Amino acid sequence: MTQSNRTDQLHLGAFIYYAGHHHAGWRHPDSGVEELFEFEMYQKLAQIAERGKFDMIFFADLLHVQNVDQAAVGMLDPMTLLSALSAVTSRIGLTATVSTTYNEPYNVARKFATLDLISKGRAGWNIVTSQLDIEAHNFGRDKHPEHALRYQMAEEFVELTTRLWDSWLEDALVLNRKTGQFADSAKVVPVDFKGQWFSSKGPLTVPRPPQGYPVLIQAGSSPQGQSFASRYGEVIFTAQQTLESAKAFYSGLNAKLVESGRKPGSLKIMPGISPILGATVEEAQAKERQLLDLIPVEAAVGILSHFLSFDLSSYDPNGPLPDIPDPVEKSNGMKSRVQLIMDTARTQNVSILELGRKMLGARGHLQFVGTPEQLADLMQLWFNEYACDGFNVMAPVLPGDFELFTDEVVPLLQERGIFRKEYTGTTLREHLGLARPEPGHFRQPASSGVQQ
Amino acid sequence: MTQSNRTDQLHLGAFIYYAGHHHAGWRHPDSGVEELFEFEMYQKLAQIAERGKFDMIFFADLLHVQNVDQAAVGMLDPMTLLSALSAVTSRIGLTATVSTTYNEPYNVARKFATLDLISKGRAGWNIVTSQLDIEAHNFGRDKHPEHALRYQMAEEFVELTTRLWDSWLEDALVLNRKTGQFADSAKVVPVDFKGQWFSSKGPLTVPRPPQGYPVLIQAGSSPQGQSFASRYGEVIFTAQQTLESAKAFYSGLNAKLVESGRKPGSLKIMPGISPILGATVEEAQAKERQLLDLIPVEAAVGILSHFLSFDLSSYDPNGPLPDIPDPVEKSNGMKSRVQLIMDTARTQNVSILELGRKMLGARGHLQFVGTPEQLADLMQLWFNEYACDGFNVMAPVLPGDFELFTDEVVPLLQERGIFRKEYTGTTLREHLGLARPEPGHFRQPASSGVQQ
Repeated sequence: MTQSNRTDQLHLGAFIYYAGHHHAGWRHPDSGVEELFEFEMYQKLAQIAERGKFDMIFFADLLHVQNVDQAAVGMLDPMTLLSALSAVTSRIGLTATVSTTYNEPYNVARKFATLDLISKGRAGWNIVTSQLDIEAHNFGRDKHPEHALRYQMAEEFVELTTRLWDSWLEDALVLNRKTGQFADSAKVVPVDFKGQWFSSKGPLTVPRPPQGYPVLIQAGSSPQGQSFASRYGEVIFTAQQTLESAKAFYSGLNAKLVESGRKPGSLKIMPGISPILGATVEEAQAKERQLLDLIPVEAAVGILSHFLSFDLSSYDPNGPLPDIPDPVEKSNGMKSRVQLIMDTARTQNVSILELGRKMLGARGHLQFVGTPEQLADLMQLWFNEYACDGFNVMAPVLPGDFELFTDEVVPLLQERGIFRKEYTGTTLREHLGLARPEPGHFRQPASSGVQQ
Repeated sequence: MTQSNRTDQLHLGAFIYYAGHHHAGWRHPDSGVEELFEFEMYQKLAQIAERGKFDMIFFADLLHVQNVDQAAVGMLDPMTLLSALSAVTSRIGLTATVSTTYNEPYNVARKFATLDLISKGRAGWNIVTSQLDIEAHNFGRDKHPEHALRYQMAEEFVELTTRLWDSWLEDALVLNRKTGQFADSAKVVPVDFKGQWFSSKGPLTVPRPPQGYPVLIQAGSSPQGQSFASRYGEVIFTAQQTLESAKAFYSGLNAKLVESGRKPGSLKIMPGISPILGATVEEAQAKERQLLDLIPVEAAVGILSHFLSFDLSSYDPNGPLPDIPDPVEKSNGMKSRVQLIMDTARTQNVSILELGRKMLGARGHLQFVGTPEQLADLMQLWFNEYACDGFNVMAPVLPGDFELFTDEVVPLLQERGIFRKEYTGTTLREHLGLARPEPGHFRQPASSGVQQ
């Protein structure tokens, strides 16, 4: 193991995606798929995560369902779940994906401020722009806005929400029963924001939340995504397949962070990792094979066709990926994810079926297959080598594999001194070592084109 | 006490509005204003209400703040609160106001379906169209849409949300691990709804909620409001000042209900009542006077000017209401509420200040001042005389007066056999005696102009 000069500890997020991150995870006996639409499932997961001293539980979100006969799909509204979880947990961070494309900034700002208030500073917002036309159709729109435009809209959306969170100064509340002064009107001020896509007068209906702003999480790894992340991101959720690419991403984004005028350490990079664990390597590999074989052929070919914008259904699924037009350029979805698939197809000799199945297995994230000890080694290495600040753990089967990770891997990380044994703070910012932003912290300079 | 042929029991909602329904309620020592933005306040209220076997806790909502120096203002997001409360209660209905003017139908349908699922059938939606330009400004719009248009939009909004709740048939989930069939794709169907204002392809991301639809609550008492209520309303939240007007409203709306082709009893009328209680009448009256005198003069004159669309600030506040242009016609807000004020001003000889203060005291709802025994008499009389099916209790001071009502009045209603001693059902529909709607229950006939 490399010696490291790191003095901090790593951060862990419990990433929740259906009944398991793996496409076929729900079919495993350890999945809780029968409780997919019940609160008990999520209460159990949050309580396991809190027992494991995770920084946060982190809900994915998708605004559509399709192929309901092939896979566990359908998601409860994550913000609704987080609010309920706030009442049955006391320390763990509560983070969810909310789209800037299909919501009103005033509503989003208010819901996160409320969650932060009722959880006493544990809210986090994974800012996404959504990706699919099928989502647009649910909101009465023909097409999803194109990639660059979505990021411009997202910048303005976040700009406005941070202003709304700043609209009550810290000491605005007076609460003087005798004089009848509830708050100081000089300290509850309109934001009068007029953007190109979003406008709001304000102020918000609730005081500045305990964390100032909820922790801002961002997953974009494309150039626009990285630019956005270096401006606003505080936790970066990224997909990295190798130590080298992760180190390059880490140093590159941290350099951009400083260029953006932000402090080193004010952004935590947490790639996803999907662990298939076994007492031996062979046991883990057998479990991986079992899960991969449970993925329907149509689903594997379909996902690959979708991401590559090319219909592969007439090709032999056991044959290699044919020459196809450059899919990265065509993609209006996750550009960086498509690049990753193409790199894998070119550098490894895998069939269409296996490529699609592996894609659905870890969904573009790092698939780990091995023993708890080996996983702790890998995590320690990535951390020590400045390839990341922590990980979003994507259990292939929920809750089974998540409980396994918590019981088998977390103690190893704790023994090695790279993960907390107890929470030392109470807010998500404290867990992550992120400063509480002052009002105006992320404010766009006047020259940036936002009209006021 | 009149003999009655009623065989049902009355229904109670715990209406939550800031730190008390009375404008000056927060200044009273029994208010919990210090916890207005903390979860503990609402947990306490929900648990008192559940102890009192209330049908539901019912959150008001306003999408703006103003006059923060004069009154307790600022509301946490009610849906966020309800979700959290679902985790710390087991029986009580969880209902909140959500605007059809400033939300997306897909999001609203999904959030209520999620709340209904995680609470096992306890969700209710108070459908409002919002009223104020100041709310429009927070959502990037210049003006609030006019009254009739708002109701047309609301009809379409509700039509779409009910279709989304119907988009998964009851037995759509298959969950067959062996075959890999998660759901039956023939039973998870798009809604393909194209309206004038709202469209959505669907299906929703979650199965049909346990109650079919959340209980649909509606407060409009204007002609458009009543028409909407007779079509969609299952609980009607109304303001009635006298037994006579309440009886007329009750019989009129029930007649409209039958005209709309709905079953008698499928709509429950629950006027608001704001009880100021004392061990003696004199004690209650003294408390009323104390609270009224705590309302600032500017607030009293201001609210009256606002509702009457006429600036009264240059008139002697202790003088009578001057002749003013017909405010009902001009109002783009709550037409029925404005009519109520004018009626009070004309039939009782009260000053501008007292009129404004009384308005802010019970906010247009029935102000009761007296002993618990007298209040139980009044509630029993209104119930027996078919003036209502129950009440929304608007405690002037929260939580103090709400706990007082629960401890002093509920037992009297129980002794008289007109209120439950224990919950007999588990869902809000069961508490209210409302049937679980079949898919398509409220569907608009094809002739109504909604395009498909």
